[in-house]
Amino acid sequence: MRLLFCGDVVGRSGRDAIVAHLPGLRRDLKLDFVIVNGENAASGFGVTEKICKQFFDHGADVVSGGNHSWDQRDCMVYINNENRLLRPLNYPEGAPGRGAALYEVPGGRKIMVMNAMGRVFMDPLDDPFAAISKILDRYKMGQQGLSAVVVDFHGEATSEKMAMGHFLDGKVSLVVGTHTHVPTADHTVLPNGTAYQSDVGMTGDYDSVIGMKKEVPVARFTKKLPTERMSPAVGEATLCALYIETDDTTGLATRVEPVRVGGRLSQTIPRVD
Amino acid sequence: MRLLFCGDVVGRSGRDAIVAHLPGLRRDLKLDFVIVNGENAASGFGVTEKICKQFFDHGADVVSGGNHSWDQRDCMVYINNENRLLRPLNYPEGAPGRGAALYEVPGGRKIMVMNAMGRVFMDPLDDPFAAISKILDRYKMGQQGLSAVVVDFHGEATSEKMAMGHFLDGKVSLVVGTHTHVPTADHTVLPNGTAYQSDVGMTGDYDSVIGMKKEVPVARFTKKLPTERMSPAVGEATLCALYIETDDTTGLATRVEPVRVGGRLSQTIPRVD
Amino acid sequence: MRLLFCGDVVGRSGRDAIVAHLPGLRRDLKLDFVIVNGENAASGFGVTEKICKQFFDHGADVVSGGNHSWDQRDCMVYINNENRLLRPLNYPEGAPGRGAALYEVPGGRKIMVMNAMGRVFMDPLDDPFAAISKILDRYKMGQQGLSAVVVDFHGEATSEKMAMGHFLDGKVSLVVGTHTHVPTADHTVLPNGTAYQSDVGMTGDYDSVIGMKKEVPVARFTKKLPTERMSPAVGEATLCALYIETDDTTGLATRVEPVRVGGRLSQTIPRVD
Amino acid sequence: MRLLFCGDVVGRSGRDAIVAHLPGLRRDLKLDFVIVNGENAASGFGVTEKICKQFFDHGADVVSGGNHSWDQRDCMVYINNENRLLRPLNYPEGAPGRGAALYEVPGGRKIMVMNAMGRVFMDPLDDPFAAISKILDRYKMGQQGLSAVVVDFHGEATSEKMAMGHFLDGKVSLVVGTHTHVPTADHTVLPNGTAYQSDVGMTGDYDSVIGMKKEVPVARFTKKLPTERMSPAVGEATLCALYIETDDTTGLATRVEPVRVGGRLSQTIPRVD
Ligand SMILES: [Fe+2]
Ligand SMILES: [Fe+2]
Ligand SMILES: [Fe+2]
Ligand SMILES: [Fe+2]
Ligand SMILES: [Fe+2]
Ligand SMILES: [Fe+2]
Ligand SMILES: [Fe+2]
Ligand SMILES: [Fe+2]
Repeated sequence: MRLLFCGDVVGRSGRDAIVAHLPGLRRDLKLDFVIVNGENAASGFGVTEKICKQFFDHGADVVSGGNHSWDQRDCMVYINNENRLLRPLNYPEGAPGRGAALYEVPGGRKIMVMNAMGRVFMDPLDDPFAAISKILDRYKMGQQGLSAVVVDFHGEATSEKMAMGHFLDGKVSLVVGTHTHVPTADHTVLPNGTAYQSDVGMTGDYDSVIGMKKEVPVARFTKKLPTERMSPAVGEATLCALYIETDDTTGLATRVEPVRVGGRLSQTIPRVD
Repeated sequence: MRLLFCGDVVGRSGRDAIVAHLPGLRRDLKLDFVIVNGENAASGFGVTEKICKQFFDHGADVVSGGNHSWDQRDCMVYINNENRLLRPLNYPEGAPGRGAALYEVPGGRKIMVMNAMGRVFMDPLDDPFAAISKILDRYKMGQQGLSAVVVDFHGEATSEKMAMGHFLDGKVSLVVGTHTHVPTADHTVLPNGTAYQSDVGMTGDYDSVIGMKKEVPVARFTKKLPTERMSPAVGEATLCALYIETDDTTGLATRVEPVRVGGRLSQTIPRVD
Repeated sequence: MRLLFCGDVVGRSGRDAIVAHLPGLRRDLKLDFVIVNGENAASGFGVTEKICKQFFDHGADVVSGGNHSWDQRDCMVYINNENRLLRPLNYPEGAPGRGAALYEVPGGRKIMVMNAMGRVFMDPLDDPFAAISKILDRYKMGQQGLSAVVVDFHGEATSEKMAMGHFLDGKVSLVVGTHTHVPTADHTVLPNGTAYQSDVGMTGDYDSVIGMKKEVPVARFTKKLPTERMSPAVGEATLCALYIETDDTTGLATRVEPVRVGGRLSQTIPRVD
Repeated sequence: MRLLFCGDVVGRSGRDAIVAHLPGLRRDLKLDFVIVNGENAASGFGVTEKICKQFFDHGADVVSGGNHSWDQRDCMVYINNENRLLRPLNYPEGAPGRGAALYEVPGGRKIMVMNAMGRVFMDPLDDPFAAISKILDRYKMGQQGLSAVVVDFHGEATSEKMAMGHFLDGKVSLVVGTHTHVPTADHTVLPNGTAYQSDVGMTGDYDSVIGMKKEVPVARFTKKLPTERMSPAVGEATLCALYIETDDTTGLATRVEPVRVGGRLSQTIPRVD
């Protein structure tokens, strides 16, 4: 299976990059399934029904979330009705929506996508290691048509992310980090066959502070006084993503490569036959 | 000027990578000056006189530090006598050693190297933005033979690192992050001419949790019980570094490229004439 | 029922206070049940079998814990065999010991004691609110001989502790905070009948920094350099406790008063007929 | 000198308690000087010129602040013109207002009041220990008519607060903690003569979560979803304060007693001849 995971889309600039580049990537990379983290798509804070639909229309199969999942209140209703929108699975019982779901992939295949949130340097939710394990007890790659499992691990600390990668190594197709808004250069296939990258980076304008216009956050760090609200930077975004190929029988990864298109970051697109 | 900055060397595996690769890189990349972050070189915790000398013997001009600077107690004496060993400059007054120093570069040039520590998700020190500013008030690139200024910003949060990059953009040659032990793929020259990378990554074994054997940290995250002490992973390390070229007159960066040699990460070495 | 809850016993000085004062308090206050938080009893770090037995011999019925529960490794075996030793209930599944248990009280009555850990400014465990709720779904005061429920909520933030008090108000006899090592003066019976105190304070020497000899922690705060290991202060301890009376039929609190005996703090002992 | 320090006034309920009780306390306790922490006086968030004037009119000499000092933007202008309004002194250089000032006390005496912010579990400012030390290098009790020095140490962690108490023991009249909104019962005169209390508690409604209506924060802790904005609880407030007597010659404390008037907490007022 050919999969693409696009990192946190930030604001209009990020959305424009999805619209401009994702359809072509879907076609050129012959993608079977595409996941987009959308937690910052609406002015940097949350996502809306309208934006999700825009993503679905331009090549996304699933939109995942993070600590900003609830920033747009309407979304708390929409997420109950839209199976393709995920939020971290380790929220308390009773939270709207779902944190993991099974999706059909052409060719009679199935993929499970999970979204979980780390706890180091973040608002504490329930144990993401235990929560994912519990699901994997029931769903095993290579059984009942389950061809791939992708985990969007939304977290801050590299230690927790690398620990999650090793914890799931061999049990899922991909553990990909989100939330720091900077792509890491450590994409790899772990020893037991799981693809891994500590953070996929944002799809946003990198002449910024994690996607936001730089003046306001710089002032906050230096003056420690209240400032105006932060808003997304408006320069051209870099679409940051991870491309992986998996073996449909085992679910394990056979290839992993970063994607960076547009904007200020160095450009890279995998070559696919 | 041609500069190389090597990220946090972790344990024996990391030191072996420095010994194996740095002399060749120094020669092939025609480097004028090399900085190595050594805060994890001694079994993952701190650095020693012996290790510093090994680094100096194999191509390093300066060894910088971080939150682990004091893990090896002998170092608190050594650092007072070794001008080439830095610790973060925003420690309280009276801390041993120094956080910034001027060094001679062949050709009558001078370079200033600063080491500062971030405060987001870290033990709070004094304001690194103010501390660096205060030094830059006295030392300006292009004046009195000062050809370059490098800032090793040791921090966790991408927001604080990007803010520091923009805060210093145009005033220093390079702001390079350390501490997360994972290289980021956002190396760039900022709009006003400062080279920037959120984190250069560790020089260590990436089949690990931030350089440590993976079993112990995974157990800590999942069981939340005490474990044996962590120790560095022993597989082959990837030397992670950032290569930059600067204009000796302005001090600004004209080129920035990542370096990854050996071990598990994807390999890259700049081409230099 | 007459209950006493003694706060975190710190080191020898704290243990001496338990030995010196608890038997007399048990007799004079005509106590039916006594709980002692012992997480710092062994040199400030954890508790041992020997110390637990000393507490049981001097009037304690149950010893509860906290983030230091595992500091003494032998305790990880002992706790499996000693039903009267508790650790926070929101540790991951599979942790040694138990976080809640039922005990017999003379007169055919039963008391449940729970130990839970907060998550604000602490190492994140699973949701303590949900974990306690789940137990209370099965055990209700006034049913099946359950005369009282005591919750030792081990946490840092007053906001989380007050929230827990209100969350459980009317459902348990007492929510008492531990961990900060300073008694609060907000003992009260909440509107629905639950006794509450944000923190009961330590049983330790208050001429100290949270029970530890003051020189070392002061040096850490001011110098930010490594110091020798902290050790408990050796001056006379103040036994800090909370005394409550409950209605055996409803389990609700009818009286709540602080206890401070010995050492430097202002002294107070409830008058009991 | 007879001094009163009133803890964080929260909302209208807290302001009403100041208006109702402070004039009487000032008269009955024969107070020479009164400080009120006002950081939550305006709907729980910050303070205004109007509220400061109300406090001055009802017996306050100085209003101090904390992390909420800037919540009301107008205050950033007002504080520049009102010497009796303080904010934490360890904000970056250039912050509006001042963190320490000298005031006249009847009888030709002078008092210095300082407001500093802790760094443990708080947004990191510069080192409060060093900042206070620097001021005390110039101002010594017993010299040049300086009869008393009061430090409002606004912080979360009991360890940092106790360390500050010992650090300043003998050099100031009083170190009193604010910010947790819960009074501690550890008021004492430290060995070298400084009065100390880890936290003076809020002047607010204690049937609340740190002064705020309880439903919203309880929902946040249990559901981890966004809620409506928090607003101050409206029940009768307890005025929480610390009363101290000092020796005008040495500046040291000779007596320290808590004050709790009105509302739900146990009541206590010192007896003064
Ligand atoms: Fe994000
Ligand atoms: Fe996020
Ligand atoms: Fe490091
Ligand atoms: Fe570090
Ligand atoms: Fe404790
Ligand atoms: Fe504790
Ligand atoms: Fe406050
Ligand atoms: Fe505060």
